[in-house]
Amino acid sequence: MINYPNGQKTKSFKTYSPSCPKKPTNFAKRGMSFEEDINATNEYYLSQEIAVIHKKPTPIQIVHVDYPARSRAKITEAYFRQASTTDYSGVYKGRYIDFEAKETNQKQSFPLKNFHHHQIEHMKAVLKQEGVAFILLHFSSRLETYYLPASKMVEFYEENKGLKSMPLDFIQKYGFLLPNQQIPRIPYIEIIRNQIGGGLNS
Amino acid sequence: MINYPNGQKTKSFKTYSPSCPKKPTNFAKRGMSFEEDINATNEYYLSQEIAVIHKKPTPIQIVHVDYPARSRAKITEAYFRQASTTDYSGVYKGRYIDFEAKETNQKQSFPLKNFHHHQIEHMKAVLKQEGVAFILLHFSSRLETYYLPASKMVEFYEENKGLKSMPLDFIQKYGFLLPNQQIPRIPYIEIIRNQIGGGLNS
Repeated sequence: MINYPNGQKTKSFKTYSPSCPKKPTNFAKRGMSFEEDINATNEYYLSQEIAVIHKKPTPIQIVHVDYPARSRAKITEAYFRQASTTDYSGVYKGRYIDFEAKETNQKQSFPLKNFHHHQIEHMKAVLKQEGVAFILLHFSSRLETYYLPASKMVEFYEENKGLKSMPLDFIQKYGFLLPNQQIPRIPYIEIIRNQIGGGLNS
Repeated sequence: MINYPNGQKTKSFKTYSPSCPKKPTNFAKRGMSFEEDINATNEYYLSQEIAVIHKKPTPIQIVHVDYPARSRAKITEAYFRQASTTDYSGVYKGRYIDFEAKETNQKQSFPLKNFHHHQIEHMKAVLKQEGVAFILLHFSSRLETYYLPASKMVEFYEENKGLKSMPLDFIQKYGFLLPNQQIPRIPYIEIIRNQIGGGLNS
């Protein structure tokens, strides 16, 4: 038995489907992907001491590691695993912040297949602990990004058993359109700031 | 250029030194490692809806991925990367919780080489955002686990430039000895609960 540094042993895992295929350059976005925009936003918030938000590392199932003499350990067999939580978390003014970010090239609705059941369960658990939970939905063809409170996401998901796409007008009714701006690119903390005092999760 | 699912490209990384060598079975702990104890504690907190705390995945630098036809993507070359944040984070009653857990077999002091400079920087950033930040220090030979507020850790680290070991009496003076118990094994939320109202980070 090999003891991996993270304490994991070989076990079964789910098949991973890459959800971010290579996209054509979008000049309106200066060629940055949605994920890169979020990461740049988080770096900005960190550098300005506005919030500390990080993307979690991609979970990897390690099967085999070589330990060559006088050299670093080399992983020679590993697989992508499905994340059991959302991708981003951190702290803003003492509060726990938790979100998932997804994009679509559809124009009128957001496919829910982008979300896994255990991510929904995670959002519910965070909401019960009064964390600030939401999703960022990017419509690449519309160049629009919305902030949707996780409570609305959970509500829609459970009503439709995760099968239906979420219509744009639902997102527009319960969510917040983020302004298009340069610095930071995805100013989601502004939404949280405006929400404080008015019920953060609804 | 290969686009990896986490958006990372091949870049330089630091050498990884496994920090958890295989330990002999400790019957007083029923053969569970400190990390397993923490994970079991977090599962307990999650199942009882007391808190939602997760360990972050180990950061891996992916260099090469095979995509065999009709099969899952297989990572064939990858390396361990140094974590840029602490290992555990989550939410308890709306508050952001962040900690690192380390163990030693020394009896009178805790070596600071177990902590990286950027982890200390992360703790400082979290403290500035009023997150609840601490470290769990396990003395395996003493069978004792201490909760030490991150503010004290940062203070000691900066005074000693990360060079000195932290003496046990410093940890005992500013930290909290966790009770030895079965469920949960590492009841750190109790400490946080007792601290609320009395200045969480000092």
